[in-house]
Amino acid sequence: MNYLLRRYIPAVKWIPQYRPQYLVGDVTSGIIVTSLLIPQSMAYALLAGLPPQVGLYASILPAIIYPLLGTSAVLAVGPVAVDSLMVGTAISQFAVESTPEYMSLAITLAFLVGGIEILIGGLRLGFLVNFISRAVISGFISGAAVIIAFSQIRNLLGLQIPSTESFFELFVLLVRNLPETNLINLALGLASMGILFYFNNPLVKQLKRLGWSDQMILPVSKSAPLLVVILGTLLVWGLRLDEWANLQVVGEIPAGLPSLNLPNLNLETVELLLPAAIAIALVGYLEGFAGGQALASKRREKLDPNQELIALGAANWGSALSGGYTVTGGLSRSVVNFAAGANTGVASIITGLLIAVTAMFLTSLFYFLPATALAAIIIMAVYRLIEVGKLRRMWVYDKADAIAWLATFIIVLGLGVEQGILWGTLIALVFHLWRTSHPHIAIVGRLGESEHFRNVLRHPVKTHPEVLAVRVDESLYFANAKYLENFINSAIADNLEVKKVLLVCNAVNLIDASGLEILEGLVADLKSLGIELYLSEVKGPVMDKLKKIGFIDYLGKDHVFLTTDQAMRTLTTN
Amino acid sequence: MNYLLRRYIPAVKWIPQYRPQYLVGDVTSGIIVTSLLIPQSMAYALLAGLPPQVGLYASILPAIIYPLLGTSAVLAVGPVAVDSLMVGTAISQFAVESTPEYMSLAITLAFLVGGIEILIGGLRLGFLVNFISRAVISGFISGAAVIIAFSQIRNLLGLQIPSTESFFELFVLLVRNLPETNLINLALGLASMGILFYFNNPLVKQLKRLGWSDQMILPVSKSAPLLVVILGTLLVWGLRLDEWANLQVVGEIPAGLPSLNLPNLNLETVELLLPAAIAIALVGYLEGFAGGQALASKRREKLDPNQELIALGAANWGSALSGGYTVTGGLSRSVVNFAAGANTGVASIITGLLIAVTAMFLTSLFYFLPATALAAIIIMAVYRLIEVGKLRRMWVYDKADAIAWLATFIIVLGLGVEQGILWGTLIALVFHLWRTSHPHIAIVGRLGESEHFRNVLRHPVKTHPEVLAVRVDESLYFANAKYLENFINSAIADNLEVKKVLLVCNAVNLIDASGLEILEGLVADLKSLGIELYLSEVKGPVMDKLKKIGFIDYLGKDHVFLTTDQAMRTLTTN
Repeated sequence: MNYLLRRYIPAVKWIPQYRPQYLVGDVTSGIIVTSLLIPQSMAYALLAGLPPQVGLYASILPAIIYPLLGTSAVLAVGPVAVDSLMVGTAISQFAVESTPEYMSLAITLAFLVGGIEILIGGLRLGFLVNFISRAVISGFISGAAVIIAFSQIRNLLGLQIPSTESFFELFVLLVRNLPETNLINLALGLASMGILFYFNNPLVKQLKRLGWSDQMILPVSKSAPLLVVILGTLLVWGLRLDEWANLQVVGEIPAGLPSLNLPNLNLETVELLLPAAIAIALVGYLEGFAGGQALASKRREKLDPNQELIALGAANWGSALSGGYTVTGGLSRSVVNFAAGANTGVASIITGLLIAVTAMFLTSLFYFLPATALAAIIIMAVYRLIEVGKLRRMWVYDKADAIAWLATFIIVLGLGVEQGILWGTLIALVFHLWRTSHPHIAIVGRLGESEHFRNVLRHPVKTHPEVLAVRVDESLYFANAKYLENFINSAIADNLEVKKVLLVCNAVNLIDASGLEILEGLVADLKSLGIELYLSEVKGPVMDKLKKIGFIDYLGKDHVFLTTDQAMRTLTTN
Repeated sequence: MNYLLRRYIPAVKWIPQYRPQYLVGDVTSGIIVTSLLIPQSMAYALLAGLPPQVGLYASILPAIIYPLLGTSAVLAVGPVAVDSLMVGTAISQFAVESTPEYMSLAITLAFLVGGIEILIGGLRLGFLVNFISRAVISGFISGAAVIIAFSQIRNLLGLQIPSTESFFELFVLLVRNLPETNLINLALGLASMGILFYFNNPLVKQLKRLGWSDQMILPVSKSAPLLVVILGTLLVWGLRLDEWANLQVVGEIPAGLPSLNLPNLNLETVELLLPAAIAIALVGYLEGFAGGQALASKRREKLDPNQELIALGAANWGSALSGGYTVTGGLSRSVVNFAAGANTGVASIITGLLIAVTAMFLTSLFYFLPATALAAIIIMAVYRLIEVGKLRRMWVYDKADAIAWLATFIIVLGLGVEQGILWGTLIALVFHLWRTSHPHIAIVGRLGESEHFRNVLRHPVKTHPEVLAVRVDESLYFANAKYLENFINSAIADNLEVKKVLLVCNAVNLIDASGLEILEGLVADLKSLGIELYLSEVKGPVMDKLKKIGFIDYLGKDHVFLTTDQAMRTLTTN
């Protein structure tokens, strides 16, 4: 019981070990993350087609629940950009933005995402995401970032354009509506971007030159989004830009905490949302776990992937119950949390409580907050996700990865995030299988008088005309066993003197049933030509299976040698 | 030009080398295969929902075209059971059996199958079929054989039941209609099966005991289907069973050669049939090439997979042009061809000509041929394809293969052959990837005073508390790189004294971009903990790529060692 508690509720372990000296770091970082989270959560909610307060609601319970169940001490859970895009795309197919129906679907979706994450984690299937290669992840995040940035350009320009997941459609709409740009809206947006850029880079360098410590620079630099929000709000309010310049503002936000509600789970809705929920659960876990792990290894912590799934799933359930939408761990806010000195999950709990206070008492302050400032915040947050540099490196290092990146990126832009991940993953798998289906196979010979046998094409080795020694550098399985058979058949058709074929198996970690069948066929076919097959350096587990199925008896016990040296000495003297 | 001719038209090579002494074997085997092919081709045409003469038409041009283009001297090309089932299932979705529309679709389908095979062969993509594992092939052939045998039971019982690809539907229909069984029909069918069984096995043994040679036994044993056809026909004709006992007979078959026609290739029809055509092309090639190769290795011939695709494709085009349907190389008839002494493709050409003579002059003899005799021939031909023994062996040898076999088999029975192959292949790939995603990783230590380093868990080895030497037995790629990272992170979290981690790379054939990224992250993370990463025994091609992308400079040139022995001596003395 105690073991189960400690395993499934990590807080049982860390809360009793909490020490007073942790508190300063936890409070400081809790405040800094909050200042970042307030504008971001509202901006991401708008990106998902939801009212801004939903972003706040999604930042309260999840931030409090995650640290109790999660295995990372510094992961900051809340709304994130890519998930918000996917939520918006999924729901806008079935309901009109800012209707109660749309909101209800968002809550149901968050609940489904949570359920799927808890299910996968409970079944300990978290390893499945390892099948999505880095190239595909980088490609889809870059593609999603381009779509998000582009979708915000309409807010920056003050244009009324419906949201769309297809980059190309959006591009056409933007160009067509360009003449209707609201210039004051654009100016305010560009100014916001300027402030964000300045605080993020030049200011940090200047303060460093002035001798400020990193601990002091961080709160200043990370306060930029809050500053943009405050300045933009004051400007709109002071000049009444919302009235005479037709500037879009956030407007009325109901004050108070969200009421707790059970999501609407009728079968029809679940069926509609399930495919999107699976994709969002996967992407959310990918982002959250990647963020948590990047920081965990810096802190010499061990993260449990399946427990992380359960914790993120519970956070999503918390969000759904309290009128929020899909959440996950955000890398950038988690890095800030870590850098600001968070010691434990208490930092995240403080963030959640501060957001609750904001939702209760401060929402009226956001009435004049201009949408263009939020667009600027999103654009400056996502442009770093467009990893063109990584593509360039992959092109140099491994063309197959670069092609998978590009394919994913293009499919994300054309068909959306889900399709991009699906097809990118399949493309990467096919590339990988194609490579292992053409394993390196070498005819080997003795190196001088040594016991070493090396490739005849690369080394000056001695061979024997009657004995063909072949080394295959891969496990034998269905996709490559035929390739080995063809290689041996070609080799003996070219060397008519061959009377014995020796298969050197030191790189064979596995022989599956297809491989076994082909080996059996090879033994029989060679025998009909008066040629005998021998094996050397068969690994223990492989040998056990071959013995069990009777292949070794079929081959002949004296046809198997421990070392290649021993085999060649025996076979060439007989 | 000459080279291209010899490559794409192998007959240019073998016809000039033809010697008179080949003729006896070629003529004998041509006649024996014909006697087998006449009843089989008509039976398979009926299985595909086509009139029996279509089976004959499909056995003329294909048998003449294949030897001119194919690389196997003994492959017997014509209608086969599994393809016929798939053709019937595909077309019966779009047209009613024995209508001109149905016939026209069958011709178009054969043309499409041929086109796809020629395209795949021309693009040299024949290796793609290697991704279908033996377990999946055996599973789908077994499943198809069960469906075929069951579909013939209705003819054996004399029941009028529509054809269906779903085994379970068919089963229900059969049971429901059982009371209407035509007992005379059943008796004649069972008697036919008895003759076929007796000739196939007990008779062969008896003749052997009498001292007959294999060359004399073969024509007798293989004449059983023809004998059943002749006896059945005589019986029905003599007793007028078709009239008073309501026995189904083949009926009127138009005499004469088929007229040459171009297939109907309107876009709509092509779209309808394309998915089925792709599946049939794939299955046809799988069967044909497997048959050809089984015999080629016995004859020390080399088959070219892509040229085989082109030859089979051309045979299908020939069939389509002459009113036939989809063909491929049949394993059982090819084995007979080989065993009867066929020396060259002339045997196949003789078969084609004899079938043409049959179509011209002998079709009226088949009027009274009972359908139940053809059903018996099909059942006795396909029951050997149900490879339960292979499943049992796989279960002993490799559970993953056995599960893939079963899954394919069950899906073929429930959803049809195409779905079975598709899902079976995916399941087998997932199993394989899952295995390589959990590679064997060992912490290694020095064996005695030797230069050998082995697994600490299996051998009494010496380790050093500050140096952790880790050997990974698999290439590093996206699906397993994370697994290695987790392994190392766990290992250093458990061994707090560790100051150096040595990665032994002798089994790493490839590091993809995901693997590289994880290695880079590992270097940085370890560094932040005061731990250095070292590599040893990196293979040449892997090293080249790591150097090119700058990883070796990033790691430090002195962090890479040629051998593990060298690495350990250096790292433990510093």
